[in-house]
Amino acid sequence: MMQQRTHRIEIATPGRGLVAVSAPILAWVAAQGIATGLLTVWCRHTSASLLVQENADPDVRDDLETFFRRLVPEGGGGRYRHETEGPDDMPAHIRAALTQTQLSIPVERGRPVLGTWQGIYLYEHRTAPHRRELALHLIGEAAEPQRRR
Amino acid sequence: MMQQRTHRIEIATPGRGLVAVSAPILAWVAAQGIATGLLTVWCRHTSASLLVQENADPDVRDDLETFFRRLVPEGGGGRYRHETEGPDDMPAHIRAALTQTQLSIPVERGRPVLGTWQGIYLYEHRTAPHRRELALHLIGEAAEPQRRR
Amino acid sequence: MMQQRTHRIEIATPGRGLVAVSAPILAWVAAQGIATGLLTVWCRHTSASLLVQENADPDVRDDLETFFRRLVPEGGGGRYRHETEGPDDMPAHIRAALTQTQLSIPVERGRPVLGTWQGIYLYEHRTAPHRRELALHLIGEAAEPQRRR
Repeated sequence: MMQQRTHRIEIATPGRGLVAVSAPILAWVAAQGIATGLLTVWCRHTSASLLVQENADPDVRDDLETFFRRLVPEGGGGRYRHETEGPDDMPAHIRAALTQTQLSIPVERGRPVLGTWQGIYLYEHRTAPHRRELALHLIGEAAEPQRRR
Repeated sequence: MMQQRTHRIEIATPGRGLVAVSAPILAWVAAQGIATGLLTVWCRHTSASLLVQENADPDVRDDLETFFRRLVPEGGGGRYRHETEGPDDMPAHIRAALTQTQLSIPVERGRPVLGTWQGIYLYEHRTAPHRRELALHLIGEAAEPQRRR
Repeated sequence: MMQQRTHRIEIATPGRGLVAVSAPILAWVAAQGIATGLLTVWCRHTSASLLVQENADPDVRDDLETFFRRLVPEGGGGRYRHETEGPDDMPAHIRAALTQTQLSIPVERGRPVLGTWQGIYLYEHRTAPHRRELALHLIGEAAEPQRRR
């Protein structure tokens, strides 16, 4: 029988950079009793976003941040029209537009089918620490699906 | 009982820029009698795309457009190989590749769980007005879901 | 009755560039006996990604590749901190971050609702040939859905 679950995860970010969120997401999915289904993660913000990246070498995250910092220059002195919320706010909106607000991942045997090197990250784009909220949705069933090739 | 709904929305765009589409999407979802589920919006084009952005200050949309205009230069004089459809066509394909063709948003209490500042936008990348089509899909059920923490 | 199907597709890539994958994906969906539903494609890698692009003029793919090559410079000589896996590895992670790891497409009459000019592509970002794996998930039902406007 097809079922649904919903959940919220709160993440405290230390400011700009990638925060690993695979662990709490996978733990929640594992506890739902749904073997096969579809997990959706939704980031409820426009200055933070989601990213799938390598979970092994932390240098990858540093290089990624360096790339985005060069690509999307910091505000100030009228570079952007939207500067009242700080020089990092408009760059944050642009960086969010270039990455993901949402990810939907197939679930098999109670686990999202991430590849060996894939981790899910919340990308904080503001320089100050923030509290961010992810909305989770899971649809599926306890039984293994019928396979037709 | 799990149910599905499908729908199409036609949008007349005035040329390059962001067109707010949250209102017709939310109105359709609200009318479906589905309290909990998953909404998917699919943009059926390769020179227009979808974006979640701040719905408050219109300057954000202007700055975003300025950023993309600088990042993806206009064609002409052989800058791109694909120029027969106009100098704005290849940039439109690139801008679509950098943004989203699809969004899937969890639905709770009959409403997509957008954050307070999040709006859904159709991003028209061509300079001339176009008619664009969004395909909507909703799966879910009338009842509230079981919550397991 | 709502049903699910899962599948894996293996793609041998010839190195950097776009590989058309619409045909095997559409063939699999057509064989599942599901008229209405939601198809999700998940790319299980962090140096390859998914893209929806024009399926007509191959110049579009060439121009897209040229754009990304300029936007994300090749490594070497310490440009990136993460260079042990080759000068093309860190650019591959950045390019993947700027495109898609996942696509979810509504299915109507047994077919994903791609627009006339839309094709699904696997974007290989490494210079060497690789074997890549896509995870597919389909949820839906044999019958046409109820339409409420």
